[in-house]
Amino acid sequence: MTTSAAALDTIRSEVDRSLRGFVDERRPQVSAPELAPLISAAEDFLAGGKRLRPAFCYWGWRGAGGGDDPAIFTAAASLELLQASALVHDDVMDASDLRRGMPSAHRRFQALHSEAGWHGSAEQFGEGAAILLGNLMLIWSSEMWRNSGLPPASLAAAQDVHDHMRTELMCGQYLDLLEQAHGENTFDSALRVALFKSGKYSVEQPLRLGLVLAAQAREPWIDRLCEEYGRCVGIAFQLRDDILGVFGDPDETGKPAGDDLREGKRTMLIARTLAAASPAQAEVVRRTLGDPALDVAGVDRLRQIIEETGALVACEAMIKNYLEDALGSLDGAPITAEARVALADLAVAATSRRT
Amino acid sequence: MTTSAAALDTIRSEVDRSLRGFVDERRPQVSAPELAPLISAAEDFLAGGKRLRPAFCYWGWRGAGGGDDPAIFTAAASLELLQASALVHDDVMDASDLRRGMPSAHRRFQALHSEAGWHGSAEQFGEGAAILLGNLMLIWSSEMWRNSGLPPASLAAAQDVHDHMRTELMCGQYLDLLEQAHGENTFDSALRVALFKSGKYSVEQPLRLGLVLAAQAREPWIDRLCEEYGRCVGIAFQLRDDILGVFGDPDETGKPAGDDLREGKRTMLIARTLAAASPAQAEVVRRTLGDPALDVAGVDRLRQIIEETGALVACEAMIKNYLEDALGSLDGAPITAEARVALADLAVAATSRRT
Repeated sequence: MTTSAAALDTIRSEVDRSLRGFVDERRPQVSAPELAPLISAAEDFLAGGKRLRPAFCYWGWRGAGGGDDPAIFTAAASLELLQASALVHDDVMDASDLRRGMPSAHRRFQALHSEAGWHGSAEQFGEGAAILLGNLMLIWSSEMWRNSGLPPASLAAAQDVHDHMRTELMCGQYLDLLEQAHGENTFDSALRVALFKSGKYSVEQPLRLGLVLAAQAREPWIDRLCEEYGRCVGIAFQLRDDILGVFGDPDETGKPAGDDLREGKRTMLIARTLAAASPAQAEVVRRTLGDPALDVAGVDRLRQIIEETGALVACEAMIKNYLEDALGSLDGAPITAEARVALADLAVAATSRRT
Repeated sequence: MTTSAAALDTIRSEVDRSLRGFVDERRPQVSAPELAPLISAAEDFLAGGKRLRPAFCYWGWRGAGGGDDPAIFTAAASLELLQASALVHDDVMDASDLRRGMPSAHRRFQALHSEAGWHGSAEQFGEGAAILLGNLMLIWSSEMWRNSGLPPASLAAAQDVHDHMRTELMCGQYLDLLEQAHGENTFDSALRVALFKSGKYSVEQPLRLGLVLAAQAREPWIDRLCEEYGRCVGIAFQLRDDILGVFGDPDETGKPAGDDLREGKRTMLIARTLAAASPAQAEVVRRTLGDPALDVAGVDRLRQIIEETGALVACEAMIKNYLEDALGSLDGAPITAEARVALADLAVAATSRRT
């Protein structure tokens, strides 16, 4: 195990501990027995996860000279509350049944309603409860951030970045909805969605938060590094996500095989497939992509076309190039040597992952 | 026009101005042309409204000695962003078509999708966009609060109250969902929902925020006043809401006549109706309450039963009693004479309104 892989394990366990502690502190506020399903759902959706966003934040902090202060783990962990909120709402918006191999939040509350035999629509109850759960975690994320224990001067310096990230996340998700509904699915539009959906929110802003917290100022070099490294790692991260959504192993992703194909996600992989497809192949894609009832044979047929058109190879090559650019962006940045190695390793981990 | 009615007009126009200013400041962040429908929806849902929550907050501030600082209007106005967020999400959760006589947010985005002839489900697009719009306003509410320009010592003193209010709002809405799904609809459970749904969030906490902001401390007398006044005005406010949901004039409420009957809302009005109903009347209520297709004759029949059982008269009497208790709670409180009059007038306005 490399030093920074060991560090990533430490970050994960510190983030887990912080999140458990945060929820525990809120128990007196949410002690009514009827609220127990809401709280246990929050705990379950906060458990696990790759913790990449906290890791980018942590290494930003260390890179700009921040010490090994326990408060940075709490601040970084708050990004996982924001992410859990986004996932719970995303699953409602996409009507997804599964998340990390478990029922999605709205399905879980729907089952609670059905099993208890309550009246009214179980589906509507499930959706409503999941919207509220997502809101609760969204609210809690800023509470955890603000109460992390970091110096007030750090928090004040990073507040604009924090606010901006949250608005950007909601706007980016709206742009993604639009792209699915009427996007041209060109290379440009697919890249733009990848950048807004993951680039900024998953990589660039967490890293910037860490750097600004430690520097207590938004230095020009911080913006340069975050834009370049964030853009490259973020896009490559999303391209990997797109590939996993089509070719990922359900045992590892926790999603049914080819789920993105059934949802009709308009990704770079699909844009490249359509751009290189024969008329007959394009016809199959147009006819079956986005069919919620697509069976295993249909998924296999689409996968085959994606491979035959060279789209898969092209996307893997893009990931490789973006990764190289990301590593290059670290060269000139005035960060600690330790952070440089860790951010290089994180870039590899974020773009070569299997889940 | 009384002095405090004139003051309420001033509060309304200051709150309107603050909200417009806040959204305007955010335009550079949300300048992509595709985001325009999201922003104009936010503006439309922020326009209008009774502004009662900001008024409770403002008069708390003035009551504990706060001056006529423009920043208090900004802080108070942020409560309207929280409320607008809750209404947009509520309408998704209840699948409501209308809000203040206009299409609800999800229906508005659904129409945008249908009219443009985009692909995929227009309904799903509408719901997704409305969830994101609500999230954006939820995020913005805390941003506006924090950046109101009030003294840091005021904001620091009130931060716990602010955090608690937001968690309580989400938990209260979840308890309301539960009550609709499996509540016993007893007097006790109806009162509890009224207290959590409106008492705390609409009256008690806004008033407490204003008082604590001005006092820069959570004095025991503040909690006593807020609990007593907030509980009484809040419950009476919700009872009025329940009556308007059944007997309100659609031209004034902006909701179809008897909408709460079609939704099957389990309110004090219904609990009292069922408690006093003859077997034949109870049978009609059980058969038709919550029927989404209930027609005008069905609504009239239910209204008649609610009147015949004495439930309407009983609820009006409860409102009157709670109002008297609320006015009594102001007597001993060490607040300014001006605020005492204004809070008495506000209690009347909140419980005798027609919209």
